[in-house]
Amino acid sequence: MGVLYHGADYNPDQWLTRPEILEQDIDFMKKAGVNCVSLGIFAWATLEPSEGNYNLDWMEEIIDKLWAAGVHIDLATPSGARPAWMAEKYPEVRRVNADRIRQLFGERHNHCYTSPVYREKVCAINQMLASRFGRHPAVIMWHISNEYGGECHCELCQKAFRKWLKEKYGTIDAVNKAWNAKFWSHEYRDFDQIESPAPHGEHSVHGLKLDWKRFVSYQTIDFMKWERDCIREIVPEAKVCVNMMYHYDGIDYFEQAKDIDLASWDSYPTWHKPGEPLWETALDTALMHDLYYSVKKQPFWLMESTPSYTNWQRVSKPKRPGVQLLTSLQAIAHGSDSVMYFQWRQSQGASEKFHGAVVSHDCREDNRVFRETCDVGAALKAMAEVAGTGKEKQAAIVMDWSNKWALEDSQGPRNIGMGFWQEMQRHYNGLAQNGVSIDFVHPQEALDGYKLVVCPLVYMMSEEFTLRLREYVKNGGTLVVTYWSGVVNETDLVWLYDSPHNLTDVLGVRRLEVDGMFDGEKRACRAVCAGLPETAQGSVLCEVAALEGATPLMVYDEEFYAGAPAVSVNEFGEGKAYYVATRFEKDFYKALYKTVGEGVLESVYPYETEEGVLATRRGEYVFLQNFNDHPAKAGEWTLEKYQTLVLKQTQDGYEKVF
Amino acid sequence: MGVLYHGADYNPDQWLTRPEILEQDIDFMKKAGVNCVSLGIFAWATLEPSEGNYNLDWMEEIIDKLWAAGVHIDLATPSGARPAWMAEKYPEVRRVNADRIRQLFGERHNHCYTSPVYREKVCAINQMLASRFGRHPAVIMWHISNEYGGECHCELCQKAFRKWLKEKYGTIDAVNKAWNAKFWSHEYRDFDQIESPAPHGEHSVHGLKLDWKRFVSYQTIDFMKWERDCIREIVPEAKVCVNMMYHYDGIDYFEQAKDIDLASWDSYPTWHKPGEPLWETALDTALMHDLYYSVKKQPFWLMESTPSYTNWQRVSKPKRPGVQLLTSLQAIAHGSDSVMYFQWRQSQGASEKFHGAVVSHDCREDNRVFRETCDVGAALKAMAEVAGTGKEKQAAIVMDWSNKWALEDSQGPRNIGMGFWQEMQRHYNGLAQNGVSIDFVHPQEALDGYKLVVCPLVYMMSEEFTLRLREYVKNGGTLVVTYWSGVVNETDLVWLYDSPHNLTDVLGVRRLEVDGMFDGEKRACRAVCAGLPETAQGSVLCEVAALEGATPLMVYDEEFYAGAPAVSVNEFGEGKAYYVATRFEKDFYKALYKTVGEGVLESVYPYETEEGVLATRRGEYVFLQNFNDHPAKAGEWTLEKYQTLVLKQTQDGYEKVF
Amino acid sequence: MGVLYHGADYNPDQWLTRPEILEQDIDFMKKAGVNCVSLGIFAWATLEPSEGNYNLDWMEEIIDKLWAAGVHIDLATPSGARPAWMAEKYPEVRRVNADRIRQLFGERHNHCYTSPVYREKVCAINQMLASRFGRHPAVIMWHISNEYGGECHCELCQKAFRKWLKEKYGTIDAVNKAWNAKFWSHEYRDFDQIESPAPHGEHSVHGLKLDWKRFVSYQTIDFMKWERDCIREIVPEAKVCVNMMYHYDGIDYFEQAKDIDLASWDSYPTWHKPGEPLWETALDTALMHDLYYSVKKQPFWLMESTPSYTNWQRVSKPKRPGVQLLTSLQAIAHGSDSVMYFQWRQSQGASEKFHGAVVSHDCREDNRVFRETCDVGAALKAMAEVAGTGKEKQAAIVMDWSNKWALEDSQGPRNIGMGFWQEMQRHYNGLAQNGVSIDFVHPQEALDGYKLVVCPLVYMMSEEFTLRLREYVKNGGTLVVTYWSGVVNETDLVWLYDSPHNLTDVLGVRRLEVDGMFDGEKRACRAVCAGLPETAQGSVLCEVAALEGATPLMVYDEEFYAGAPAVSVNEFGEGKAYYVATRFEKDFYKALYKTVGEGVLESVYPYETEEGVLATRRGEYVFLQNFNDHPAKAGEWTLEKYQTLVLKQTQDGYEKVF
Repeated sequence: MGVLYHGADYNPDQWLTRPEILEQDIDFMKKAGVNCVSLGIFAWATLEPSEGNYNLDWMEEIIDKLWAAGVHIDLATPSGARPAWMAEKYPEVRRVNADRIRQLFGERHNHCYTSPVYREKVCAINQMLASRFGRHPAVIMWHISNEYGGECHCELCQKAFRKWLKEKYGTIDAVNKAWNAKFWSHEYRDFDQIESPAPHGEHSVHGLKLDWKRFVSYQTIDFMKWERDCIREIVPEAKVCVNMMYHYDGIDYFEQAKDIDLASWDSYPTWHKPGEPLWETALDTALMHDLYYSVKKQPFWLMESTPSYTNWQRVSKPKRPGVQLLTSLQAIAHGSDSVMYFQWRQSQGASEKFHGAVVSHDCREDNRVFRETCDVGAALKAMAEVAGTGKEKQAAIVMDWSNKWALEDSQGPRNIGMGFWQEMQRHYNGLAQNGVSIDFVHPQEALDGYKLVVCPLVYMMSEEFTLRLREYVKNGGTLVVTYWSGVVNETDLVWLYDSPHNLTDVLGVRRLEVDGMFDGEKRACRAVCAGLPETAQGSVLCEVAALEGATPLMVYDEEFYAGAPAVSVNEFGEGKAYYVATRFEKDFYKALYKTVGEGVLESVYPYETEEGVLATRRGEYVFLQNFNDHPAKAGEWTLEKYQTLVLKQTQDGYEKVF
Repeated sequence: MGVLYHGADYNPDQWLTRPEILEQDIDFMKKAGVNCVSLGIFAWATLEPSEGNYNLDWMEEIIDKLWAAGVHIDLATPSGARPAWMAEKYPEVRRVNADRIRQLFGERHNHCYTSPVYREKVCAINQMLASRFGRHPAVIMWHISNEYGGECHCELCQKAFRKWLKEKYGTIDAVNKAWNAKFWSHEYRDFDQIESPAPHGEHSVHGLKLDWKRFVSYQTIDFMKWERDCIREIVPEAKVCVNMMYHYDGIDYFEQAKDIDLASWDSYPTWHKPGEPLWETALDTALMHDLYYSVKKQPFWLMESTPSYTNWQRVSKPKRPGVQLLTSLQAIAHGSDSVMYFQWRQSQGASEKFHGAVVSHDCREDNRVFRETCDVGAALKAMAEVAGTGKEKQAAIVMDWSNKWALEDSQGPRNIGMGFWQEMQRHYNGLAQNGVSIDFVHPQEALDGYKLVVCPLVYMMSEEFTLRLREYVKNGGTLVVTYWSGVVNETDLVWLYDSPHNLTDVLGVRRLEVDGMFDGEKRACRAVCAGLPETAQGSVLCEVAALEGATPLMVYDEEFYAGAPAVSVNEFGEGKAYYVATRFEKDFYKALYKTVGEGVLESVYPYETEEGVLATRRGEYVFLQNFNDHPAKAGEWTLEKYQTLVLKQTQDGYEKVF
Repeated sequence: MGVLYHGADYNPDQWLTRPEILEQDIDFMKKAGVNCVSLGIFAWATLEPSEGNYNLDWMEEIIDKLWAAGVHIDLATPSGARPAWMAEKYPEVRRVNADRIRQLFGERHNHCYTSPVYREKVCAINQMLASRFGRHPAVIMWHISNEYGGECHCELCQKAFRKWLKEKYGTIDAVNKAWNAKFWSHEYRDFDQIESPAPHGEHSVHGLKLDWKRFVSYQTIDFMKWERDCIREIVPEAKVCVNMMYHYDGIDYFEQAKDIDLASWDSYPTWHKPGEPLWETALDTALMHDLYYSVKKQPFWLMESTPSYTNWQRVSKPKRPGVQLLTSLQAIAHGSDSVMYFQWRQSQGASEKFHGAVVSHDCREDNRVFRETCDVGAALKAMAEVAGTGKEKQAAIVMDWSNKWALEDSQGPRNIGMGFWQEMQRHYNGLAQNGVSIDFVHPQEALDGYKLVVCPLVYMMSEEFTLRLREYVKNGGTLVVTYWSGVVNETDLVWLYDSPHNLTDVLGVRRLEVDGMFDGEKRACRAVCAGLPETAQGSVLCEVAALEGATPLMVYDEEFYAGAPAVSVNEFGEGKAYYVATRFEKDFYKALYKTVGEGVLESVYPYETEEGVLATRRGEYVFLQNFNDHPAKAGEWTLEKYQTLVLKQTQDGYEKVF
């Protein structure tokens, strides 16, 4: 029988002088059905109060008490923030900003990933923890550092960057060519001349900036591997995870996922935004759940979430009654094997003291947040059997951090923002509203097994990837490619001659021009087929393409490109390729993917559901969730406001699990 | 018989080569009824052209001429800006910004308050002035520096900060505890590790930032005391004042007021803003007048104001005809014993050359601004008898700079702004529109004698203060406490267990949750008592409290907390305590304080007055001012557009003074 | 027979390894009617790959091939961007920002104009180019550097600034007086104490900032002269030009124009902005064409334009079909002898890769942009006879960079922006819509021959200029002076006593007050004469003036200055002087200049034309251009959408040239 984990970040080091608090913690954990905590994040100053002087006894006591209460440990390495003594004695551990100013002591997540001193100190404390607790039965997972991110521009990092470039390109001439460095006379004669982008230095050479982003991601992962390997030197079988973040731009998480055992993420949607129905916020969150399922194509953990509100959003709104349960179970529905919170108990001071927590400053168990946390505990216990189950391969959306970096750094055709995530979300929602299971795939991953591959704003495509897309369609796959895809190669050089590169015959169209649209500007389109909305509005970019064999489904209905395809389809080999020339309004995509999916994709719950009810599936389990604040129908079921229904598919139909 | 002072900042040092200008000055001063000027602000470069080479003769000549014309002197120390030679020879006098970059020479109000060199140079020039002019009969007051403010992060200041912390806390462990420095592993092992907040250093530890603000305020006052004491070494009986500023955040003016003889401030309201009636701007200004009356609980001076327009506001609009007189007399109505302007004569060049002045660039006496200044001169002479009179104790609003600093630095529950002054203003206006005399009190001041105490957003409350509030109510006082009060202690650590701390039984409510509201978001409330508006709208924060004995007066009418108290009242001992759970629309507060004040407070002019007519009282004098641009009624009187009426209360009723 | 040049920036150095590309270039140039290219801008790294190691053979080959194809060369000096080796070896060539931080290598247009090393290196490469190609028959012009601009705050520049000041003022006391440095005790005792304005230093002394701007302009031009003279040392007869920019603020182009043979500019209007008719964008562009005609009062070159879109605007929109031809010919219509593009071929990488070009990434000749470029080539050939013709003197608008600097740096009366160019544009459009030929004149230029002189926002006027304006009117000229003119002298000191200085009797009005207006705020005015709109709305600043002899034409109709003149006219000597007290809505000015021009000015095409059709004249050639997207009438002609008609005026009427 599987286990779904329920728990929180636990920071008892803040309360060591308050035994009544620590005692209440254990008592309340039992009441809330907590069976796992992330322990020791940011505890370094307590674990090593002065250099080489370790103090781990308090942690041993805590771990033993937790374990006695049935609580597992996701043991943190404390590298997310370093002690003051280290910052003082070894300035090199402090990050240097892009303006080349070294940071002072303070804050967190701001050490140099290259610094040998920092690596040495991290290794020492990690190994100390591993030796002492690595084989404790409670410890089931290592929480490596915390929310890795950011970048350092110190001399050590500059050298590491140059080394990375040399290994990648071999010669400086290859670098110049890859970056088109002749532009503005920017050729380098030596690797030593290369410096990271700076506000007061180079910031116009796209290839340099792209490679700097790649290097930062590489170096961060390299540091993570160092942490992991230090632990495994002591406990070779140690399992490790990192916590990823919403829309985080700084790390290629597909790359990072290769070197960990478990992906996890910290989910803080802005629920209850005025003017946005809850189900839309839920789909935004669902995309991220599916992305972090996809980075390893296996169940992940919801590592952090808030049982009530955050304190760092512009405005903090508590989750309405029932929403904590609903949104916690949404993570399970999308493949999480845990519901964890930041944090167990509200801090008494400093920047996050008003962040919601299971135990509030009032230290009471009769308040709403604690009671609703108990509800989650009970629900997870009731549906533990879903733990470990995976998802079916249906649709794949191509996601590539390098592409996003290149796209967003590009000057032109629209410098007020391309809305990368908005484009992703439109395709995701269109599929999700048709009840389709969605994976994200990296361009280097195999496309086999997917019925549909979607390329939204895949501006950057390597020769190799375009050739695989051709093969995929030729062999019967269905492909959707949007405007502004297939424009540049992997170093951000524009593909000459054909565009989208290697795909003009696959799509049956050739890109001619791009009309950038101001915010609020719209271009009328009309359908020339059945099934799609009769009229729709293009925005953001209106790409003008020559029809070279495709069948138009929608056409522009105004401007000098009236009649040019806005959506088209082309048969290529055994498959079909759709081209979407612009960004339509949100509700266009449900119809689009109904058309695209016909005969290709199947709903995970093929019965009529009201708007606001979302259906997902793990293994044999179907989750129906009502994000409306009123009852709603899904097939034969009526769901109460904010209700989650978990059904097990059997030969005879569905059996209610929860 | 008293004197009301009338005059301006006078900078003859800018015109020493133009004798016809200096001559016109004296002539025009006589015509305008000027009897006092602030002399020598920013004259240092003229007084000490090179190090130790003093040049005071020109000033003596000016002082003698002024005195001969009946003009008193508020003699300035010139420390608001230093000469170029000093900045060049002693870099330490120049301030270091938070980014740790030392400023170049230039601007003003930007010296290091800690620098021993600066203190020495200031002492020398101050004593030179004191020796020469300190006993001149014209000199009735010392204008210490100018608009003190800002902060320095140099090494001298860092050391002073650490010393201040050591004196306050004793041990580094006490600091760590006070700041909850375990959070993010931020514990210090030594005072030397502590650095002031920095954009590239620590800026998340609320306790550190709060103490830094307190230190800056302390050090500024310490510098002011140094200036004062240098003068008093020469002239022990010298009276000193400083000029304070609108909504100024950087100095605890209650603390500063303890060390001066006279409080004064520089008042530059944005009169004639489109869409705001003049009386609203007037109430905004009135609050500040009352605050600067309150810092010493004695008459203050209006040290600077403009007779026409400023030049530094976004848009400069001249005061409409009659408004200079109206607004000048408003200061008198609220306890000022002077009307002074910046400046006497417009500068010919540099940044403030277009600031309004009594004498314009046209050097004419027939223009509007000069004629209206003469009107003010005549009016002040006519009502001189009010000079020195004080105000009656009625309502007290709690004001605490430390509280404001902590509140605004807090992360959560609303990071787009808490609107501290807007909250203060609502309570102030509600009281003022009921004709109540208003003081501001610091939490350390005694509450005796006040019929009403209001705590608007008093987020930070010390144990001691909460206990005194209890006593105050118990003994028959009336208390109003708003949402988000009594949350943290004096080092910004959250009070555990009860909230508002020590006041749940006084108020009869206990805080449960806080719903942050976006700008424009509103929450419907409805009255469950007579006297308050039937419906009203909550905003900013909607606090949800459990009723524990209080009687609800308004309740929320929507969301999951419908029915929870929005306003409530509780009897406690001999007194009453009101709780206001949210921020209502502006016009709610007049009704609120009518209800609260019933049987408790009395109007200073208990007759019906039209909207836009404001009534205030000093001693036996009632001021009625019509801020409407049309005639309006107040009791039996009809006031012309912009008219001020000064009445003396006698046994038989009112006697018109002006 | 004249020649109109057609071509582009040509950067073959980016394609030296791709012979098929270089071959296609020549082929396509012939097809597009290209007869001139700007060669070698930003080619330094290719021309001098390491210090002193020159590589010019490739360029010789290119030049020979171009010349063989009939293409002339505008040969660039490569100083717009320096090679990496120079930045590395000689840090002094890299600019220092206002924050005193030296830039790293990267970007362009960012060298120190003072650095002796940079001057030496530039001289060497320039002379190398001059020796090799200076007498090549293809080389008809030198393109000195590229888009000069920006400023450097290094120690070398500080010294040069002090030297410039010393030469200008002689003594430090003269500086103090000119800057009114007594204000805030800012007097200098020595030139060495003066530093350039800085965010962390002085930024309130207007005179300092104004002189710094003048120095930066001076030093930039000095550098340009150095470049020019190095070339002329080798080729004394070399002709030189620089490319100027839209609304560029950093250089006094009147001053710069004195030292070049040909003015040129880079024109990138934002055509097709939503909500703005094309003819308005065209008038905005026309103003700049006329300005760059005016800096030398002779035909200029359109040095850069885009055949389709830019990539650096907020949104990139391609020119609609026909608009490339229309807008290219607009330059000719206003006095350009060329139509040149940036760039010939789109770069494959880096920041401008998506900028439109004659040859697109698709390398095809059948796309729209290439075809329309061929149309331009043909048109220029057809109307070559207009080359070299000049414009008639009619109206002159006073333009003075120093005035703009002083005006915009001023604190008060409206710090949210004075809208300098918007004011200029209103007067320009009003005149242009009446078919008047417009020049811009510098205050130091003679006013003889102009029928009308307009002073829009000429805030700064020297004694000498005011006297010449008096003479101009006295002798029969017509003058228009707006609000906020004649306020300060040439060092930004306010004129005392009379205002506008020396013009109160000329205009018959005297400035009393200025009412600053918020955005969106309006003040009603009404006509008190025939010919002007019955009502109009004042904005930005409403100046209140005393009538001292003038006849009001419009008066304010509200506020305390109702009845004061909003527009007035005064007879002075043989001439007339108009005063415009505020900024009116855009469409007021056509009527204003119809009234002002009656009997004074004549249209270049005195027949009725529909709105959106613009008429201009060079020599005997009248250009009629229809900026509407529909046919429109002009006199007896009907112009198709976007059509340009070129007519030659003969004794019998008009003869169609194109």
